[in-house]
Amino acid sequence: MFKGVLFDIDDTLYDTSGFAKLARKAALNVMIDGGLPLESEDAYIKLRKIIKEKGSNYDKHFNVLTREVFGEEKPLLIALGMITYHNVKFALLRPFPETTSTLLHLNKRGYHLGVVSNGITIKQWEKLIRLGLYHFFDEVITSEAAGVEKPDPKIFELALNQMGCKSSKSIMVGNKFSEDIMGAINAGMSAILVNSKLTESEKDFINKEKIELEVLENIGELKDIL
Amino acid sequence: MFKGVLFDIDDTLYDTSGFAKLARKAALNVMIDGGLPLESEDAYIKLRKIIKEKGSNYDKHFNVLTREVFGEEKPLLIALGMITYHNVKFALLRPFPETTSTLLHLNKRGYHLGVVSNGITIKQWEKLIRLGLYHFFDEVITSEAAGVEKPDPKIFELALNQMGCKSSKSIMVGNKFSEDIMGAINAGMSAILVNSKLTESEKDFINKEKIELEVLENIGELKDIL
Repeated sequence: MFKGVLFDIDDTLYDTSGFAKLARKAALNVMIDGGLPLESEDAYIKLRKIIKEKGSNYDKHFNVLTREVFGEEKPLLIALGMITYHNVKFALLRPFPETTSTLLHLNKRGYHLGVVSNGITIKQWEKLIRLGLYHFFDEVITSEAAGVEKPDPKIFELALNQMGCKSSKSIMVGNKFSEDIMGAINAGMSAILVNSKLTESEKDFINKEKIELEVLENIGELKDIL
Repeated sequence: MFKGVLFDIDDTLYDTSGFAKLARKAALNVMIDGGLPLESEDAYIKLRKIIKEKGSNYDKHFNVLTREVFGEEKPLLIALGMITYHNVKFALLRPFPETTSTLLHLNKRGYHLGVVSNGITIKQWEKLIRLGLYHFFDEVITSEAAGVEKPDPKIFELALNQMGCKSSKSIMVGNKFSEDIMGAINAGMSAILVNSKLTESEKDFINKEKIELEVLENIGELKDIL
C-alpha cells in the first residue's frame, strides 16, 4: 500500500477567491462602461449579495444583476460581463507560488497524489489542466463520481482505494475545517489545514476530541514536514 | 421609417465552419497526446460522425467520443479536448477580412444594422463582442427572443419593428438559402446570399417564383451594391 496525499483544489492549490474577486470587479467595470447605471463599488456590493443568495456555482449572477437594475435581463451587458469575467479569470489563473514545488517534492518522496473535491469531475480536471498541475495527480475524485460530498468519509475512502493507498498512512490537505479536515479524520486519515485559521470553537473541539491537526500558513510548508 | 440591413452571424460575418474545424482537430491532437488511442484522421472522422448525429450545438461531443472509444467517459481527456477547442477557437476568432469595412460603409450610408439568428440571445451577443462587431448592431433578435426560428417570417418582422425599419426597404444578408433568404422574402424584404452557392433546384425555384436575389462571393461586395 502506498502513502497518499489528497488535496482540495479551491483556495488550497490556488487563490480561487482572490482571482474571482478581481475578475468580478473587472466584469462589472466593463458592464458599467456598457451602460449599467451603477457606481463600481455599489455594483460589487449588489453582485456579492446575489452571489451569497444564489451560491458561487450558479452561473447566472449577471442575469440577476441586470434584472434587478433594469427590471429585465440585458443580454449584451450579461455577455460583456461573462466574457470579461472568464478572460480575466483565465489570464490570472496560476497556482500559489509554492504549489508546484511542493507537489514535485511530494512526488520525489514517493507520495501518491490525488484530489478530492466537491463538484463536477470534468470541471475539476479543467482547473488542474489550466493550472498546469494535472500531471501530478493519479486520481481526481469528485462528489459527482462518489455520489456523496465532503465531509462524507466515503469520498476520501474511494479516492484512497483507487490510488491503492492506506488511510492510516495518508494525509488530507485542505483549507476548510469542516469539509476537508473532519471528513479526512473520520476516514481514518491525518489532516493538514492550510490558508485558513481555526475558530475558537474549532480549537475547543480539537482539544476536547484530542484530534491531531497541523495548521500551516501555506502549502509550501508541507515540504518541511513531509 | 429607416432602411435596415439584417445579418446572419455564422459563416456570414465570420468563418465559423473553418475555425471550428481547426479547433476540433487541435483538440483531438491534444486528446491523442493524452492517451486517446486513435490516429488523428480517424479521430476526426469519428468526431464528425458524432457531430452529425448530435448536432453542432450539442456540447458533449468529446464525452461521446471517449465513451465510444473506451466504453466509459474519460474526464481528463474530455477536459483536455474542451479547453483546447475553446482556446483555439477564441484565438482564431475574427471577422471575414471585409466584414468590418462593410459594416462601417453601411453605417455611413445610413442603414440601420441588426442581427437575426437562431440561438440563445446572450450567446449571439457574445460572438459579436468577441468579434469586435457589437457596436455596429442596433438589435440582435434570436429565435430564443422571438419564439420562432428562421425561416419563420415573424423573426424578421420582429427585428425590423424593433429597429423602426420598413420591410420593403430592408435587406437580409445570410449564407443559408432556406433559412435566411426565403424567410426574409416571405417577410417582404429583399435578400442577398453570401458565401454560398445556389443548388440547381434552388435556381429553378427562384426562376419559377420570379424571386429577385443577389448572390455575392463575399460580404465585401455589399459595398458595391448598397
